[in-house]
Amino acid sequence: MKYYSLSYSLQWLPFLIPTLILSCCVSAAQFNVPRLGPLSRGILRNPEPAAVSESFSKDLKTFFYAQTLDHFNYRPESYKTFRQRYVMNFKHWGGAKAGAPIFAYLGAEAPLDGDLVTIGFLNDNAARFDALLIYIEHRYYGKSIPFGSTKEAMKNASTLGYFNSAQAIADYAAVLMHVKKKLHAQNSPVIVIGGSYGGMLASWFRLKYPHIALGALASSAPILYFDEIAPEIGYYSIVTKDFREASESCYRTIRRSWSEIDRIASKPNGLSILSKRFKTCDHLESSFELKDYLDSIYAEAAQYNEPPTYPVTVVCKGINGASKRTDTLGRIFHGLVAIAGKRSCYDTKEFNYPTETYLGWRWQKCSEMVLPIGHATNDTMFQPEPFNLNRFIKVCNSLYSVSPRPHWVTTYYGGRDIKLILHRFASNIIFSNGLRDPYSSGGVLENISDTLVAVYTRHGSHCLDILPSQKSDPQWLVMQRKMEVEIIKGWMDKYYTDLANRR
Amino acid sequence: MKYYSLSYSLQWLPFLIPTLILSCCVSAAQFNVPRLGPLSRGILRNPEPAAVSESFSKDLKTFFYAQTLDHFNYRPESYKTFRQRYVMNFKHWGGAKAGAPIFAYLGAEAPLDGDLVTIGFLNDNAARFDALLIYIEHRYYGKSIPFGSTKEAMKNASTLGYFNSAQAIADYAAVLMHVKKKLHAQNSPVIVIGGSYGGMLASWFRLKYPHIALGALASSAPILYFDEIAPEIGYYSIVTKDFREASESCYRTIRRSWSEIDRIASKPNGLSILSKRFKTCDHLESSFELKDYLDSIYAEAAQYNEPPTYPVTVVCKGINGASKRTDTLGRIFHGLVAIAGKRSCYDTKEFNYPTETYLGWRWQKCSEMVLPIGHATNDTMFQPEPFNLNRFIKVCNSLYSVSPRPHWVTTYYGGRDIKLILHRFASNIIFSNGLRDPYSSGGVLENISDTLVAVYTRHGSHCLDILPSQKSDPQWLVMQRKMEVEIIKGWMDKYYTDLANRR
Repeated sequence: MKYYSLSYSLQWLPFLIPTLILSCCVSAAQFNVPRLGPLSRGILRNPEPAAVSESFSKDLKTFFYAQTLDHFNYRPESYKTFRQRYVMNFKHWGGAKAGAPIFAYLGAEAPLDGDLVTIGFLNDNAARFDALLIYIEHRYYGKSIPFGSTKEAMKNASTLGYFNSAQAIADYAAVLMHVKKKLHAQNSPVIVIGGSYGGMLASWFRLKYPHIALGALASSAPILYFDEIAPEIGYYSIVTKDFREASESCYRTIRRSWSEIDRIASKPNGLSILSKRFKTCDHLESSFELKDYLDSIYAEAAQYNEPPTYPVTVVCKGINGASKRTDTLGRIFHGLVAIAGKRSCYDTKEFNYPTETYLGWRWQKCSEMVLPIGHATNDTMFQPEPFNLNRFIKVCNSLYSVSPRPHWVTTYYGGRDIKLILHRFASNIIFSNGLRDPYSSGGVLENISDTLVAVYTRHGSHCLDILPSQKSDPQWLVMQRKMEVEIIKGWMDKYYTDLANRR
Repeated sequence: MKYYSLSYSLQWLPFLIPTLILSCCVSAAQFNVPRLGPLSRGILRNPEPAAVSESFSKDLKTFFYAQTLDHFNYRPESYKTFRQRYVMNFKHWGGAKAGAPIFAYLGAEAPLDGDLVTIGFLNDNAARFDALLIYIEHRYYGKSIPFGSTKEAMKNASTLGYFNSAQAIADYAAVLMHVKKKLHAQNSPVIVIGGSYGGMLASWFRLKYPHIALGALASSAPILYFDEIAPEIGYYSIVTKDFREASESCYRTIRRSWSEIDRIASKPNGLSILSKRFKTCDHLESSFELKDYLDSIYAEAAQYNEPPTYPVTVVCKGINGASKRTDTLGRIFHGLVAIAGKRSCYDTKEFNYPTETYLGWRWQKCSEMVLPIGHATNDTMFQPEPFNLNRFIKVCNSLYSVSPRPHWVTTYYGGRDIKLILHRFASNIIFSNGLRDPYSSGGVLENISDTLVAVYTRHGSHCLDILPSQKSDPQWLVMQRKMEVEIIKGWMDKYYTDLANRR
């Protein structure tokens, strides 16, 4: 466990165990659905929060708001407050008198620290809009922890119960109203921005709090990946498509590899052979452990298939580049080395480290964020494995002794028949996607109206548009960002006209 | 206490006491803000729930839904369910295949029984629209009580905490989705209808759940009477205007009467004199007790100033009709007798009986429904009495040991700058009002857009448009209802066209 001190890992042991139990007997792929979030925190990149916090710009000022624990309940306990962190950057703000805008980044399932540097869209456009920048941390992450400590907050369902999206966007509403009041910025339009789960929050925030946000940029937000609106196979179909487009033979090798792993695993000492061949840090307890690890690597490579490196191409170069006589598993291992780098050993539990994000998102999945990702049929390069809601519910019960509410997201936020419903309701949301992002299969890819628009790129990956712009950015990415800025500019022009004509 | 058995009144004694304490030393007028609801349950009418339930039509079928206690929390307790009552009438429904519409009445701060007969709009228009009718009871009222019994549910803030509008409209969302699924009526558009507080719920439901309701008829919904959006004096200014329009001398007599009551009250035996002159059932404990009673009577007369009787006119006829030599208080008493009828005695606590509505609404006021109704200045026919939030909070704390959240309604639902905000967001809400209704001072009286429209009548009173149509209805009321039906018809035509063109 090279990232964690023993004491830390022991502290989380009780959380870890059920997952281990699970993964020793069946595939955990479905339970550990590919992670959301603008950046890979797996093998592709690994920003250390500590490092990030040192890089804080001098323009960033940190504040804490006394946030209400439960906005939708009036039990005495509901009135408890916790310190919610938000960070502001006034450098380019045109001020309240001018009604200059506010760009608000809505935090997602991670501490805010990383986002302050990895979410470039706000900073890259602050000067052009004379915008005040505010980044708000999601409850139960980072420094915004109720009940005094992460240990207390994460203890059980009784303290975790307040940890959900409706409470989170109500937090954002309260913080934004507080800030606007404090700055006398009542006329400053707010644009909320988020990526992945945070992109869902941004679009939902505009829908639920139009009186607080003028518009939303929802980047790579799979708001349709709930309650069987989008097909469960969507995610892995796109992973497959990405690899097949990169290389047909690479695709065929991966497709072949699973049964080959099973064949060897079934031998006496099969798991020892596999452990050796893949240099696993710990002796494999089941073939699923290896298959889930590779599954996660291919998924992350596709989801974060960013220029200029394009991880999918990297994996396939590794697989295809092996010497002629290399067998299937040899080629798969070559692909692993190509993307993960030469290591003394490969930790198949790498994607299940009990990080804040892993543990926080696991709770969110087990309460309301039930994304039924699976692959029932044979159409992908993965082994068929339908999403099994009952098993999912069983795992959640074993972890928290409460059941998910798989229909709540569509009840509260909608999603079904979205065009029919929102064509004549709501406005000012950009749903941005990259079609190579597996999560785009749950995204909005069609304009709903003149002001509810889908902006996507054929070659884009997860949340690419809100990452910092770079010299090396391909033209299609530059154009996507330009279009998003133009659309937001249009919303504001309309708003300022309405404001001027207000009686 | 002619309406309540001793045992009943004793059961509620603990709830009553604080109000009594309050009214013995200062005016309780502000705390007992004029009641909402489509019908006067005070002196003007008094439908006995028992009587009503006998009048249930054979077309009404009653159902119960296992409702989630807390939609926004995942504590184990939040998963508790309670039986929520809803009533359906299939008589005129065109069926799911035809996508025939559903009219949904959203229950308010009373048991559903009364509304089934007093809300005429649904039944009166069912045949014309081939509509299914559904009436849903508000949590914590009637037969929709969590925690097994009213006594348990109303015990303290820990059980009352779940009793609020956000939970209530989430209940309605769950019930409507359940019913549509059960009936395979996914394509049937839902129109939600409500009056007064229920009208607020209807407009808020369309704003928060557009994927469940195509449109809303919000009758006499004072959604702007929060957080100082509308002036606090609005309500009593209109009461005053109503009386002044009915009769200048009547208005002057009432205006004069308060100081006259004070003058006599200040005498030795003053309260005995007043008790005798007004035939109060109990000896007056303070002049406020009498003044609050008269205040409530004038307020109800104005709020429910319905054709054909027009209670305000009745009161003023009484006041003006007294023989020439009658003094001011004599005339006031004449007015009381005219509206309340000849009684052996007049119960000044009549408006504070601990009915379900009185106790339920008192909690709702003390948690989120803080309508700051007062009259700071001298412009009305009442004595100046500014709304005092601090005192209000103190009373709520003494009753429930929790404080109201006076800014929550505007944070969650908005209201400020409503035209600027909603002009380019949302659609399909009718805000209907009668300008003689004091609560219209907190209503939406101006079109926000082509589909967010204000429909009001100069002579209308509270919720008049959704009461059953009658032969005696004046032309302006007939026209108002006709216009509302035309608008709803327009929404549906658009919807069915969209549905047909759906890819």
